[in-house]
Amino acid sequence: MATYEDVINLALRRSFFYPASEVYNGPSGFYNYGPYGASVKRKVVELWRKLLVQKEGFFEINGAIAMPEEVFKASGHMTNFNDPVTKCKKCGVFHRADHLLKEKTGEDYKEAMNNEVLTEALRKHKVACPKCKGELSDVSKLNMMVKVEVGVTPKNIFLRPETCQTIFTDFSRMIKTMRLKLPQGISQVGKSFRNEISPRQTILRTVEFDQMETEVFFDSQKIDEVENWQDVENYKVCVQLVGKDKVEQISCNDLHKKKIVSGKLIAYYLARTQQLYEAYGFKKENIRFRQLDDEERAFYAKEGWDFEVKTSIGWLELIANNYRTDYDLGNHAKGSKQDMQYVYPDGKKVLPHVWEISIGVDRTLYAVLENSLTTLNDKVVLGLPTSLAPLHAAIFPLVSNKEEITKKAKEVQKTIEYFDVFYDDSGSIGKRYARMDEVGVPYCITIDHQSVEDNTVTIRDRDTTEQKRVNLKDLQKIMHELIFVGKKFSEV
Amino acid sequence: MATYEDVINLALRRSFFYPASEVYNGPSGFYNYGPYGASVKRKVVELWRKLLVQKEGFFEINGAIAMPEEVFKASGHMTNFNDPVTKCKKCGVFHRADHLLKEKTGEDYKEAMNNEVLTEALRKHKVACPKCKGELSDVSKLNMMVKVEVGVTPKNIFLRPETCQTIFTDFSRMIKTMRLKLPQGISQVGKSFRNEISPRQTILRTVEFDQMETEVFFDSQKIDEVENWQDVENYKVCVQLVGKDKVEQISCNDLHKKKIVSGKLIAYYLARTQQLYEAYGFKKENIRFRQLDDEERAFYAKEGWDFEVKTSIGWLELIANNYRTDYDLGNHAKGSKQDMQYVYPDGKKVLPHVWEISIGVDRTLYAVLENSLTTLNDKVVLGLPTSLAPLHAAIFPLVSNKEEITKKAKEVQKTIEYFDVFYDDSGSIGKRYARMDEVGVPYCITIDHQSVEDNTVTIRDRDTTEQKRVNLKDLQKIMHELIFVGKKFSEV
Repeated sequence: MATYEDVINLALRRSFFYPASEVYNGPSGFYNYGPYGASVKRKVVELWRKLLVQKEGFFEINGAIAMPEEVFKASGHMTNFNDPVTKCKKCGVFHRADHLLKEKTGEDYKEAMNNEVLTEALRKHKVACPKCKGELSDVSKLNMMVKVEVGVTPKNIFLRPETCQTIFTDFSRMIKTMRLKLPQGISQVGKSFRNEISPRQTILRTVEFDQMETEVFFDSQKIDEVENWQDVENYKVCVQLVGKDKVEQISCNDLHKKKIVSGKLIAYYLARTQQLYEAYGFKKENIRFRQLDDEERAFYAKEGWDFEVKTSIGWLELIANNYRTDYDLGNHAKGSKQDMQYVYPDGKKVLPHVWEISIGVDRTLYAVLENSLTTLNDKVVLGLPTSLAPLHAAIFPLVSNKEEITKKAKEVQKTIEYFDVFYDDSGSIGKRYARMDEVGVPYCITIDHQSVEDNTVTIRDRDTTEQKRVNLKDLQKIMHELIFVGKKFSEV
Repeated sequence: MATYEDVINLALRRSFFYPASEVYNGPSGFYNYGPYGASVKRKVVELWRKLLVQKEGFFEINGAIAMPEEVFKASGHMTNFNDPVTKCKKCGVFHRADHLLKEKTGEDYKEAMNNEVLTEALRKHKVACPKCKGELSDVSKLNMMVKVEVGVTPKNIFLRPETCQTIFTDFSRMIKTMRLKLPQGISQVGKSFRNEISPRQTILRTVEFDQMETEVFFDSQKIDEVENWQDVENYKVCVQLVGKDKVEQISCNDLHKKKIVSGKLIAYYLARTQQLYEAYGFKKENIRFRQLDDEERAFYAKEGWDFEVKTSIGWLELIANNYRTDYDLGNHAKGSKQDMQYVYPDGKKVLPHVWEISIGVDRTLYAVLENSLTTLNDKVVLGLPTSLAPLHAAIFPLVSNKEEITKKAKEVQKTIEYFDVFYDDSGSIGKRYARMDEVGVPYCITIDHQSVEDNTVTIRDRDTTEQKRVNLKDLQKIMHELIFVGKKFSEV
């Protein structure tokens, strides 16, 4: 199994991701994605859009990152969105107090603990600055909102710490202009910013990051009315209940009947979400919805499940799933003095409740890379699902100095230009295969002397290294079956 | 022809776009995109990616929006990226001095003019505050960079004012890790921020906006070596030369031979860029590359062309095309003390020159909407090219209270779920057609009593309102031809 270091080595070597403003030794907590990384990341988003957003009939909006202070006063972020920090009295560097304590003691210190408890623990365990061994200050709270200075506007403006605030503030407009009917999911993918005190683990904890979030608005009285319930009722969701040390597979029916979830709607979306991650290539034994206990849940959440996948660095949280009730709409209705109720045709009004599926895109990308990374015959192979591969195929003229082979290779490229293909004529075929295997390209198409004579090419499969010779006139159809229909190489 | 007001009316009525944080009366200069607008915007980007990025073999990267001050010291933004502003002494509001003068006099005042000249002109023309008629201050320069407060990092951090700075700072990494060979385009789509003093005209001038930019890196000695020159040599580009008041169509061959451009590479990309906008639905008579004179060009640009389209509010600039020479790489090499030269296999080194294609996504979306908006039989129709339509088709059961019709309609939906479809069963068929026409959905598929009997459905074409009855088993193939192959309705 690949380790965290394996992933980072590959990422830096082939520029999947790397520190932003690297040549200027940029600030920590910001990452850029190179051509392969940006492509896989985009495909992670596209599969989400296809399987979770469009298939479920959700609306997808795209809002500004910068929002005025009023939004975050109403949402509670201005007062509640704080990290417990301690500053080194010697070198001046800030640290997360709870993280230092976790590392030192192995015990489970939480960011929500109050300043005095954390300060006392720092003293008791004799925690010093990890950088310079200097003495640490008392713990205080630091707000995680990132403020922006926008010239001449009189308003205080912040970069949103979660994309969902756009969804809540736009909800009443969606009611008025989109003929919205409950239940209705509204989704958004985009940037969020958090003032992380100690960004670390590359793309796993950054200041600037991407989220793909959905808020499903529903009538809490109708939480058990789910149109496509029959699609999931026997589907088993991997859950780890509070107090249990094992993951169990429980059907949606049982989640509902045993009242493990607040209603069918929640079981339904747990299932849909898990199915997305199965499509990302994760096996059921490596995923879990971890039920949150009262202490871990945000105070407004009636029910919460962290979706996690097993990685080389332990279970990694990729999604926060929360039953936020009417907390957000209620606060924004009050803060903005707007009516955010949904009105039924008979005039009955209801302030919708919300089920949130808040996915970290960068973390999902990391997990996808680690889950796909393997070695075959001592060579690195990134076995990405075809739908997430950065390119569909590479096109290799066997040699670059024979005009008729080059010409045929260009003809092949033209034939399948509808797909994402890459033309490469430099180095031995073995080296070219290895370069493509390493970045996850599923198929390599080679044009050789025989191709010129009989109009055939060979297709090589990344995962088996098996090769097939096919007629050029069938190539488009075969590629279509492999890439879009999802057929296996052995089946075409 | 549609007016600016027609577009804004449609945009607000159907939530294509609307002011961000609207319920809080958010600051001006920020816009959100609703479901239809976000979808069309995404498709504008996807067509760019397909036709300009992938077809040309460009690398596409995706970098952090926030970058440290060093980047913008080297790029010149910290000192040069200023707007001339004047402040009302009475109400305290800031205004762009050059804009006020343009509006008052109709003459061409430029932001690059110095403070004294602009101040004198304000006095001479007796310009007062347009809000309160108060007296205006002397003109001063205001830096347009947006600063962010990121907690505990000692660095000053700004949101990039153009996405290309990521491309320049990542260039040396692309050389090292991506086996880059000149010429090579590197592209990026993403957010930029500019401290606009007077944001206006909705999405046409905002603080937060999207760009899709490409920097083509090339050896200036080889500016006339273009691999696919034969593809464009006879293609005519719409150009308006300095000093001319008419747009001329000049072939790439002539642009090169008559030395209107610095080299073939530039003519080639002018052609490719124009072809993209033809695919967006613009007619040649409504587009032009306007050649910039010495005064209009940035001081580092050897050659510059503004790509503009004709709209109801005049020619609108959508793209800045600039021959930036080695200005950026030279400055960043100096600023970062990194070698940014490209090394040929024989050891020869060259600092690449750059051809920039800097596209405004939001402005392109606006132009696409205005260009597509029309009326047919007194009803609003958004005649978007199929590749830019927010949805591929709508599915309408003729009535919603007949179980067999609903069942058949759901079957139809399932059959073509691969496409972006929308199910709607409320209101009369006429109303449902009108709602889809207005947001640009090209096809409506209706399921009626006959459908249940003989397994046929009718497809209605948005632009002709023509209808065809087809067998359900052929629907998938027909949709594929209409949507992906680009066949006309009359041809299927």
